[in-house]
Amino acid sequence: MQQLKERILHDGRCLPGGVLKVDGFVNHQMDAQLMHDMAAELVRRFHGVPVDKVFTIEASGIAPAIMVGWLLQCPVVFAKKKRPSTMHQPPLEARIRSFTKGVDTSIYVSREFLRRGERILFVDDFLANGSAARGILDLVCQAQARLVGMGFIIEKAFQHGGDALRREGIRVESLAVIDSLDDGIIRLRP
Amino acid sequence: MQQLKERILHDGRCLPGGVLKVDGFVNHQMDAQLMHDMAAELVRRFHGVPVDKVFTIEASGIAPAIMVGWLLQCPVVFAKKKRPSTMHQPPLEARIRSFTKGVDTSIYVSREFLRRGERILFVDDFLANGSAARGILDLVCQAQARLVGMGFIIEKAFQHGGDALRREGIRVESLAVIDSLDDGIIRLRP
Repeated sequence: MQQLKERILHDGRCLPGGVLKVDGFVNHQMDAQLMHDMAAELVRRFHGVPVDKVFTIEASGIAPAIMVGWLLQCPVVFAKKKRPSTMHQPPLEARIRSFTKGVDTSIYVSREFLRRGERILFVDDFLANGSAARGILDLVCQAQARLVGMGFIIEKAFQHGGDALRREGIRVESLAVIDSLDDGIIRLRP
Repeated sequence: MQQLKERILHDGRCLPGGVLKVDGFVNHQMDAQLMHDMAAELVRRFHGVPVDKVFTIEASGIAPAIMVGWLLQCPVVFAKKKRPSTMHQPPLEARIRSFTKGVDTSIYVSREFLRRGERILFVDDFLANGSAARGILDLVCQAQARLVGMGFIIEKAFQHGGDALRREGIRVESLAVIDSLDDGIIRLRP
């Protein structure tokens, strides 16, 4: 997606350890119009794929996911990183590892909101090593729901999470693919 | 907002301790069309108020805030509950108390994204005792920005956060006002 790529080159910054900082328009301050347009592009790429529910993880997945859900006219569920005090029945739980924070955490979803047979489109801001995506797969599998695709704003191809998911036959779409951040230079896939 | 009130009466549940559970359509599973329509109603109520930036707190404020920001065509910033590892400069920090979780936490915003003189509209899902709103006021004040209003999906009037904010001259708009959850019955203000 050209508009996103230009924005990444203009406003993105490389931090040590393969971190791409895009907090001026994606995951702290958000460009609302760009967020809408990225959601519309994801919807275009998944055209023809039947979706019952959009699924994401708090917090930075919520903005693209709610836009995709609104465009697809289907509910959006976000997995929580803490077990909410208002969740009385035991939720579904999966373990994930945060790439930027370097720690393992659990994600939770209420059994009520992820059900057997539902066709799930996962939407998130970043795909790196694919740990969050694996956690989502785990939850979808526990619920006996069906993952129909995964859509990301930015894929860091050099961390290979996307390759592994695609090898397993999962349809993965990323609006911008970063081939390398070596030497502090953002190299985007053409 | 009639549609929201009906949905609260239909799908909301009272939990002990004055908690209203609306996780089927507001803050775990989200009704994307309702989220859009609630945002549009907030925008209608703040018509004529100049807004430079929409401000919210992760996670459940993000969905209404991004919709409001998109409709107003302005950037949306969410305060973070953890200091991100990619935030190198010291961020602005305020302390808040979570009503449902009963613990004090800090919220953070990068100095880059909340600046002197900016006109800020705060959007969140719940207004209860107003602790999150106070934290936001604190951040806005530290940044020497200007709060022009606060818009909430649901206000629990019996916890009086809204009264105190309005007494201080802050414009507060809530799409549904709960007068009481006594005896497990949701009493909405007409």
